[in-house]
Amino acid sequence: MHSIGVDIGGTKIAAGVVSAEGEVLARVRRQTPATDPQAIEEAVVDAVAELRAGHEVDAVGVAAAGFVDAGRSTVVFAPNLAWRDEPLGTDLAAALGLPVVVENDANAAGWAEFVHGAGRAVQDMVMLTIGTGLGGGVIVGGELLRGPHGFAAELGHVRVVPDGHVCGCGNRGCWEQYASGRALVREARAMVTSGGPVAQRLLDLAGGDPGAITGPHVTRAARDGDAAAQDLLADLGRWIGEGAAGMVAVLDSSAVVVGGAVAEAGELLLEPARAAFHRQLPARGYRPEAVLLQAELGNDAGMIGVADLARRR
Amino acid sequence: MHSIGVDIGGTKIAAGVVSAEGEVLARVRRQTPATDPQAIEEAVVDAVAELRAGHEVDAVGVAAAGFVDAGRSTVVFAPNLAWRDEPLGTDLAAALGLPVVVENDANAAGWAEFVHGAGRAVQDMVMLTIGTGLGGGVIVGGELLRGPHGFAAELGHVRVVPDGHVCGCGNRGCWEQYASGRALVREARAMVTSGGPVAQRLLDLAGGDPGAITGPHVTRAARDGDAAAQDLLADLGRWIGEGAAGMVAVLDSSAVVVGGAVAEAGELLLEPARAAFHRQLPARGYRPEAVLLQAELGNDAGMIGVADLARRR
Repeated sequence: MHSIGVDIGGTKIAAGVVSAEGEVLARVRRQTPATDPQAIEEAVVDAVAELRAGHEVDAVGVAAAGFVDAGRSTVVFAPNLAWRDEPLGTDLAAALGLPVVVENDANAAGWAEFVHGAGRAVQDMVMLTIGTGLGGGVIVGGELLRGPHGFAAELGHVRVVPDGHVCGCGNRGCWEQYASGRALVREARAMVTSGGPVAQRLLDLAGGDPGAITGPHVTRAARDGDAAAQDLLADLGRWIGEGAAGMVAVLDSSAVVVGGAVAEAGELLLEPARAAFHRQLPARGYRPEAVLLQAELGNDAGMIGVADLARRR
Repeated sequence: MHSIGVDIGGTKIAAGVVSAEGEVLARVRRQTPATDPQAIEEAVVDAVAELRAGHEVDAVGVAAAGFVDAGRSTVVFAPNLAWRDEPLGTDLAAALGLPVVVENDANAAGWAEFVHGAGRAVQDMVMLTIGTGLGGGVIVGGELLRGPHGFAAELGHVRVVPDGHVCGCGNRGCWEQYASGRALVREARAMVTSGGPVAQRLLDLAGGDPGAITGPHVTRAARDGDAAAQDLLADLGRWIGEGAAGMVAVLDSSAVVVGGAVAEAGELLLEPARAAFHRQLPARGYRPEAVLLQAELGNDAGMIGVADLARRR
């Protein structure tokens, strides 16, 4: 039986009918009215209704950027969606007449890569979703690590630099401030603003306005051979790899899968990440070493993962 | 049925008969001939034979400071014991005619605190054994986290300071270099050597020789009211607490248990550790917060834990 996966982002809702093999059979999109929980729920109900008109499904999974409780139903805290103790699962199940499983979006993406993507050959993996921020998902012995409160794998908020950059979570030095699209853009703008000659290509791509530089500009410039842009991706890769080594020191994972929009930079990011990762591993030379892989499911990972979690509820 | 736990340290072997309730019914000690694996095995066989003369047992657990393989039999790498791919479990089982389970000593200590000690009320905990170094043990959902290769919970080698102090593992900035007895002594000696007037009590306790300062000297001076020694323990506590928050960000544990010889400083260490821990937790105020507790089983934790793991083999 198919299930529906719904990925609630900060600006849009993506929903799809997903087969047991992880294939997306149909999909719809809605805008996210981010500050109005009621309106988000209505948009999800509407999207699911449209999908059910064409496919029989037996469960709905909902992925959202936030802390989801141990019962996989209530969003305890979602900073970008203005949710506090929002009973999303209960409300949606009542409105839809279907079982609903709610999961953190990065956990859902990690589960998708584990079941259907880059991590399908292993039983223990770490997923890093590198978009604007850094989302984490952890698989231990073939199971999604949720923790007793549902708050596990908040990898972006592990501190990697004492007294480092301020983070939106209220602390300083969080990994997310060094290994994310936001960090890449911050460093790129700082490099350009410093006025050195190396960053001219980046400035050109941004139309001459340092404040207009985006992550894709950096990747494009790097692909075009711009050395400064390549350095920016290499620095980002180093932070990814060194942090990943810390996670493997804790978890002994067999694979680290790197996804999210920033991972589309590919080997320009992953090669320096791998070098840093292997250098930083404890007991290197005496251990089977984890592989660091690019994710395979792209933007659909959250939707596919949460649909699968709903199917296995 | 009772089992025997053997804890192989850098200078001594402690072995005991342990009941299912975690009680140590009899114990013996042997010196550790650290550089000779064969001599260590003979000392273990001899200690077990002595214990079996007075008690019936059905299994032997052996805890050692090192990386133990997924089969809980071979010590892949033990830096302080000169072991490389040492088939300790197989050799001992043949010599003893009993099932033998080998486990990393910090994992064993964590398991003991989980089953019989400070963590017995929870299902998810982190154990920090703070002696000369920093050993980690992790319980996830009531199970010891070993990882697919047996190398999980190497918490002391998670990097917490980029370009930080050099570690014996070959990297820099490992947590163990900031949250361990070795770190405490390093900082105490540096403080005294700097010649400030605040550290006079510490210097007196060490007989006037900064190089003779030990961890117990710091704890004694702090208990006597010496402000500089109290600051040293508070700094150590801060590194413990901040690092523990990172572990809870990954694992969502319900409790962090702090043991090892350095933890005998008690609240002088744990109160600043708790303050730093709570301040550094992601989503604090929106989550059930883990408790940070002092370990209860002292030096026997490794022996008791590995005896229990052998019983449950």
